[in-house]
Amino acid sequence: MSLPSSDGSRLDPRLSERLGELVDLTHVEQMLAWDQQVMMPAGGAPARAEALATISRLHHQRLVAPELGALLDDAAATEPLIARAARRDHDVARRVPAELTAAMSLAGSQGYATWLQAREDNDFATFEPALRRNIELARRYAECFPEAAHPYDPLLDRYEAGTTAAQVTTLFERLRAALVPLLSQIALQPARQTFAGDFPIAAQREVGLEIAQSMGFDAGAWRLDDAVHPFAAAPGRADIRVTSRFDEHSLSGLFALMHEVGHGLYEHGVDPALERTTLGSGVSLGVHESQSRLWENLVGRSREFWTHWLPRMRERFPLTLRDVDLDAFVRAINIVRPTLIRVEADEVTYSLHVILRYELELALVEGSLATADLPAAWAAKMKQFLGVDVPDDLNGVLQDVHWSEGIIGYFPTYAIGNVLAAQLWRAAEGDIPGLGEAIARGELGALRTWLREKVHRHGRLLSPPELIEQATGGPLDPAAMLEYLGAKYGALYGISGS
Amino acid sequence: MSLPSSDGSRLDPRLSERLGELVDLTHVEQMLAWDQQVMMPAGGAPARAEALATISRLHHQRLVAPELGALLDDAAATEPLIARAARRDHDVARRVPAELTAAMSLAGSQGYATWLQAREDNDFATFEPALRRNIELARRYAECFPEAAHPYDPLLDRYEAGTTAAQVTTLFERLRAALVPLLSQIALQPARQTFAGDFPIAAQREVGLEIAQSMGFDAGAWRLDDAVHPFAAAPGRADIRVTSRFDEHSLSGLFALMHEVGHGLYEHGVDPALERTTLGSGVSLGVHESQSRLWENLVGRSREFWTHWLPRMRERFPLTLRDVDLDAFVRAINIVRPTLIRVEADEVTYSLHVILRYELELALVEGSLATADLPAAWAAKMKQFLGVDVPDDLNGVLQDVHWSEGIIGYFPTYAIGNVLAAQLWRAAEGDIPGLGEAIARGELGALRTWLREKVHRHGRLLSPPELIEQATGGPLDPAAMLEYLGAKYGALYGISGS
Repeated sequence: MSLPSSDGSRLDPRLSERLGELVDLTHVEQMLAWDQQVMMPAGGAPARAEALATISRLHHQRLVAPELGALLDDAAATEPLIARAARRDHDVARRVPAELTAAMSLAGSQGYATWLQAREDNDFATFEPALRRNIELARRYAECFPEAAHPYDPLLDRYEAGTTAAQVTTLFERLRAALVPLLSQIALQPARQTFAGDFPIAAQREVGLEIAQSMGFDAGAWRLDDAVHPFAAAPGRADIRVTSRFDEHSLSGLFALMHEVGHGLYEHGVDPALERTTLGSGVSLGVHESQSRLWENLVGRSREFWTHWLPRMRERFPLTLRDVDLDAFVRAINIVRPTLIRVEADEVTYSLHVILRYELELALVEGSLATADLPAAWAAKMKQFLGVDVPDDLNGVLQDVHWSEGIIGYFPTYAIGNVLAAQLWRAAEGDIPGLGEAIARGELGALRTWLREKVHRHGRLLSPPELIEQATGGPLDPAAMLEYLGAKYGALYGISGS
Repeated sequence: MSLPSSDGSRLDPRLSERLGELVDLTHVEQMLAWDQQVMMPAGGAPARAEALATISRLHHQRLVAPELGALLDDAAATEPLIARAARRDHDVARRVPAELTAAMSLAGSQGYATWLQAREDNDFATFEPALRRNIELARRYAECFPEAAHPYDPLLDRYEAGTTAAQVTTLFERLRAALVPLLSQIALQPARQTFAGDFPIAAQREVGLEIAQSMGFDAGAWRLDDAVHPFAAAPGRADIRVTSRFDEHSLSGLFALMHEVGHGLYEHGVDPALERTTLGSGVSLGVHESQSRLWENLVGRSREFWTHWLPRMRERFPLTLRDVDLDAFVRAINIVRPTLIRVEADEVTYSLHVILRYELELALVEGSLATADLPAAWAAKMKQFLGVDVPDDLNGVLQDVHWSEGIIGYFPTYAIGNVLAAQLWRAAEGDIPGLGEAIARGELGALRTWLREKVHRHGRLLSPPELIEQATGGPLDPAAMLEYLGAKYGALYGISGS
């Protein structure tokens, strides 16, 4: 499959102006949301909720303008790819009343503030009314698409265009069917020891910044800050904001940072010619997550990567790492163990956390699960999938920010990202001679260039299935990921034939 | 004089919604500008300029909407004060063609870039064409208000509504007639020594935060950050962002911080009922500056204030302050010396810097001074007012950013603020028994409460002249300031009868 390339240079200036305005409003939304999570004093929440609702309403008004539709009709001949993607946004937005869009935005901001409070109280009851409101609004959103086979489909479509709940259910069945036995085999092996000692946060931040720089972070176009829930934002193509949460008892903040830099590289790597066309960002959350997961896991948890970085880590953390050799280090950062917190989960259990959330939000949206019953349902599934007991809401249903902001239909994209990351990794290994050796020398440029060429530069010009096809030579397929996990953890845990 | 109070509760909901939207866009502009100066990586500049231009255009479009005018007509009977202020914004915006507004915005951006280049070259000639363009556009702006007695009046009106060039000229003649002789008398005294030693920045920041907290800063609604040019922003009434620039060789950053907290207290102290009416912020730049100057100078450079704070400073800066007693400290922070740079000027010379700029921009707008002749005119006035020789453009006409961005008519508000600060201080001393003693105990709450009652809570409900009349019992009058400066510096420099 081959599609014509496109850079917006043939667009009618009136269309360019309208698309540019949409881009600006998106950048403003990114800015306000980033500030809300990283900088804003708590007292700013009400005014910020109002400001976000207004920007979202203005964005919506402009996206649904009939004049935009007419200009996009005219552009279909000269810039078909741009017109196609922009028209899709236009058509979807026209289905949703402006009043509902604004209500969702407002409820999301308020829900986030309520979630923070509920986390302080460690009490889901504080948060429940806000969640109920978000679910109710999500259902109203889904009702705007009566042709959908399932009310979850239009919600998922916001994050992973062209994928349905039925496809996700099938994909997740294949994953679960393979991951649960792999986890069982690992569980039969002796438990692995993590590090005996701490990692002072200031030193983690320093080495984290060095690693980020080797990936492509540069201070002229990037920032690194702390956030309760690490995320990346892009208020501009050359204004990339990554965050992490460092913890002196583990290296989780370093991996979270690599993850977020992976997201940032995608936004930063889009063809600048697409910058003001509304196509100048990542095409879907699943593709986005493939980038973050590839850097976090396929690179960041590999033996090759730490061949270069472990000596540098030893300089920073001599007390903890003095007697830890490369094999022991790689084993320690790849411990598989069912735990309570998704963002701290290992590569094997991670997708099970996602599947749990998918099943619960599917039930919430269907109405077969009441929000008040969510903590119990959460605990039951944690026991069933991972065999662990949930001690409290903070370690259970209150751990993720998404639902607080009305982000429903998002979780599956994390697992889609894992699957695609392994496919891309396999393709990169085929295309880049000596990739592993380069990484072992600390050289990440060839991989970044390959990802930019195959994924980043296209922005939203190709649909997710088109992009996956072009980059990997086939459709989304869990085989590469299951093979990778089987081989890696088979070796690490001495399991044969997994 | 007494005016009915007003809180927006009787407004038509359609008007409330339109005004609330304008408030949100203003908050967004505050947010984007704050981030640009405090957080944004350099690469973000192009996208930020686009985003700011779009928000500014949307704000303008909504402000001039005829529907807003009609709703304000209807509101004149039920909420006369709110309707009056909002109508004024609407009417002024409608008088200026969108084409001119856009041209001024573009010329301002280009002028700023040219000014930066001219500063690098230390050559006014680089900047002169951009300044000429800004002056020409300012004149075209003034022509939109043909009823004005002087073309400077509509320019000044943007920053200090209801004040005219004729009034400023009269005020400044009285100031100059008193300040130049006072400065001459001080110049006859032996030069005063500043501190022998440094003030480490981390400790300045700590004590600065403590001082700010005693003024009313609280972490739930405020932030303190570093900025090259200190400023305050308010993306929400309970989201106050102050900045400072600490310098280890002086205490200038502490005074800048008190100055910015003064601005922040004004925004934070507006009646919450006005929050979504477009009247929920400071009424003019002169009144705003009265708040910052009052805290910076009338409080922050007083003997009473340091009676409480000097012992705390000694703990932080033992090497520098061990042998500095209260009298010596107060002398050192109140040194009067004619210098080249406005932002470093003391209380006596500051207004002379402002008067110089006012006279020059008045002549530029009138056309009696050509932009090419500006450096010579600047040097002549510096010699005449302050007795100093201007060595180059960087230390002269290129020092301030304002003109580069087309901000013409702004400078007088600095001196108006100084004048009003002294009037408010005199009124506060009359109203608050034991004010000086309270400050000497570190208690600033009574002063803050008085300012909130007399100034802050009104927002833009009263016009600047109405507010000054209500708060001080009379119109703007330099007598209080001249008396204050004469008494303070007469005592500090041992000058009798000044």
